[in-house]
Amino acid sequence: MAVSPLAPAAFPSLPAIAGVRFATAAAGVRYKGRTDVMLAVLDAGAVVAGVFTRSSTRSAAVLDCQAKNGLPATGGAAIVVNSGNSNAFTGKVGAVSVAAISAATAELLGLSEDRVFTSSTGVIGEPMPHQRIIDALPALQGALDGSAIDAAARAIMTTDTFPKGASATVNVGGKTVTISGIAKGSGMIAPDMATMLVYIFTDALIDHASLQAAVSGASDSTFNCITVDSDTSTSDTVLVAATGASGVQVAGNADFTAALTDVMRDLALQVVRDGEGATKFIEVQVTGAADDLDARKVAMAIANSPLVKTAIAGQDANWGRVVMAVGKSGAAADRDLLAIRFGDIWVARNGYRDPDYSEDATSAYMKQQELVIGVDLGLGEGRSTVWTCDLTHGYIDINADYRS
Amino acid sequence: MAVSPLAPAAFPSLPAIAGVRFATAAAGVRYKGRTDVMLAVLDAGAVVAGVFTRSSTRSAAVLDCQAKNGLPATGGAAIVVNSGNSNAFTGKVGAVSVAAISAATAELLGLSEDRVFTSSTGVIGEPMPHQRIIDALPALQGALDGSAIDAAARAIMTTDTFPKGASATVNVGGKTVTISGIAKGSGMIAPDMATMLVYIFTDALIDHASLQAAVSGASDSTFNCITVDSDTSTSDTVLVAATGASGVQVAGNADFTAALTDVMRDLALQVVRDGEGATKFIEVQVTGAADDLDARKVAMAIANSPLVKTAIAGQDANWGRVVMAVGKSGAAADRDLLAIRFGDIWVARNGYRDPDYSEDATSAYMKQQELVIGVDLGLGEGRSTVWTCDLTHGYIDINADYRS
Repeated sequence: MAVSPLAPAAFPSLPAIAGVRFATAAAGVRYKGRTDVMLAVLDAGAVVAGVFTRSSTRSAAVLDCQAKNGLPATGGAAIVVNSGNSNAFTGKVGAVSVAAISAATAELLGLSEDRVFTSSTGVIGEPMPHQRIIDALPALQGALDGSAIDAAARAIMTTDTFPKGASATVNVGGKTVTISGIAKGSGMIAPDMATMLVYIFTDALIDHASLQAAVSGASDSTFNCITVDSDTSTSDTVLVAATGASGVQVAGNADFTAALTDVMRDLALQVVRDGEGATKFIEVQVTGAADDLDARKVAMAIANSPLVKTAIAGQDANWGRVVMAVGKSGAAADRDLLAIRFGDIWVARNGYRDPDYSEDATSAYMKQQELVIGVDLGLGEGRSTVWTCDLTHGYIDINADYRS
Repeated sequence: MAVSPLAPAAFPSLPAIAGVRFATAAAGVRYKGRTDVMLAVLDAGAVVAGVFTRSSTRSAAVLDCQAKNGLPATGGAAIVVNSGNSNAFTGKVGAVSVAAISAATAELLGLSEDRVFTSSTGVIGEPMPHQRIIDALPALQGALDGSAIDAAARAIMTTDTFPKGASATVNVGGKTVTISGIAKGSGMIAPDMATMLVYIFTDALIDHASLQAAVSGASDSTFNCITVDSDTSTSDTVLVAATGASGVQVAGNADFTAALTDVMRDLALQVVRDGEGATKFIEVQVTGAADDLDARKVAMAIANSPLVKTAIAGQDANWGRVVMAVGKSGAAADRDLLAIRFGDIWVARNGYRDPDYSEDATSAYMKQQELVIGVDLGLGEGRSTVWTCDLTHGYIDINADYRS
């Protein structure tokens, strides 16, 4: 698979986070000749918080992570992630696999089972060969390395065309706190190998409730604002682990939350940039809605519209389809107050084509790889920004042939 | 454009309805060398009821029809429909065009303006050349013919690959009532030329409130149960006109409502069969939901999922994507009670692959042109059936290049 044309030039250099080490292995879960398991081990005192798919058919690993999230914790912790098999829709057997991996990891590393978080991504509905992962654990333990986060980013890939990483540093009271994160995901948020998984590590010192609040809040403006195809995975998981190794207390610190949000947004946008078949990166900016919720509805209706997304693929400034998406969104809208722009070019104002509209200028703009669709509803102060990609023949190629 | 592989073998022979006459003209609204206006004239006493798009950006013609629907009526009535220009998102000028066509038609035919219903379908956001339609009216009047409904079905086509018609007769107290209808629509329900327009005529005798109740009720299980791409037009219109010429009173008659529903379902399914790029016709049957509303949510989530629709295009029995769609629907669901079948082949039961599942048998089934996806949620008695088509390269071809 060719690397997405929207990919960053290179994987970033991610700073090591004191208190966390990584290892990867080629366990042969499904793939041959590549790594497919990553282990992250957190020193004693680490705090782990997370957000998870809202799907009612979520996988056994997600249910297990949710049950463990926020339990009273002592000692270290571990995160075990495999690609190749999602262990989703595997009935009661799925929970057995999760428990087996957790127990083996806990025993080997001397951790409480409550402190082992697992994720699985890959084919759905196939029995999970969890023994292959368990068999790889001793070698993983032997290979643990604080600087191996880039290898971890590669081991969790499925249909991803590039590994995804992002980092930030934040100054808190004259001391530096560091955040490094990785992600996988290429269809938002598809059920097979296109699940979105995100693991973020920081040396900040923070209690679970404060970390959970920061992660939940930041998700709302980052991971919950991207869409590739409107489909939602049964396995989507974001885990954020704070080792406390910096000794810098960040509970309630706005700068830390902002830096964490930046890392999450960066990873979220990389997932969009790896959208299956994507050739255009689209930012949808909605303003003037009755409230922020309405703005989100409009933005998501535009971002998920197959007709808008195919028009973008065709480099067609088809603002009529944007009007259509506004109309079907369910948000309050007045046709005759609508204004629509592509980039800085207003194509419609007051419910009609802008008198200064230039088809040539707009057509030139639509040839760019990064596009902005702006909509002002003219009703109030509500605003929302979401990100998506176009809908192309490549998406059909990937998804009409994926499983067979 | 090649005719859809899912098209009926031929346009049906539609019985004439006493009290209604049709004419068509090539007015050059946009197209050259084809008819693009149809006029239907209803004798005095006709009753007209309708259902319309819920889009908040609906077109001027829709707003006008809604305002006229159910007004006290005397004399005859007319329906004027053009293709080539949707008169949608044309600002305040749009209403001027509707009023001009209504006034000219009313004057020529000696009708009240309140009794002239118009629809427009075609490009969005372009000024409507309504004078071309007005100029064609005298010739249309001269050509009125009770047997010309098939020509009317052709004049309203846009990206449709075949004209759509359906009819039924119903016995009421030993007398026969006849229903004949036509439709256009090929993307459900796209904003450009793929709007769905439906015109149904009957010689039944019925008051407006009773006819409206029958039409609204029947729409809920027919036109509101189809989807091609989840997009909603700004112009969707269903008008049902009862001339009363049979003298047979049908208000509240269940047999009449059933026959009307049959005609509406037939036309709705023809719209799906003409879905842009469609190669497979899919019926989604959901049972065992907590209630009918939840069943509809699940059925629509499946029918609108790009991942399910591309899997069908690839002839892949990818039931994992069906699970995903159930999970994201928002309906109550228990992963471990789910059962899924393709046709009569159960692929999953109790949240896991059916032990008797045969990949070969399922693969053979998926090669068929007409497919059933069945989902039983195992929770209650709620049920819903919806219809859709697959998502193919053809859809991308049509929609990435349409306007330019």
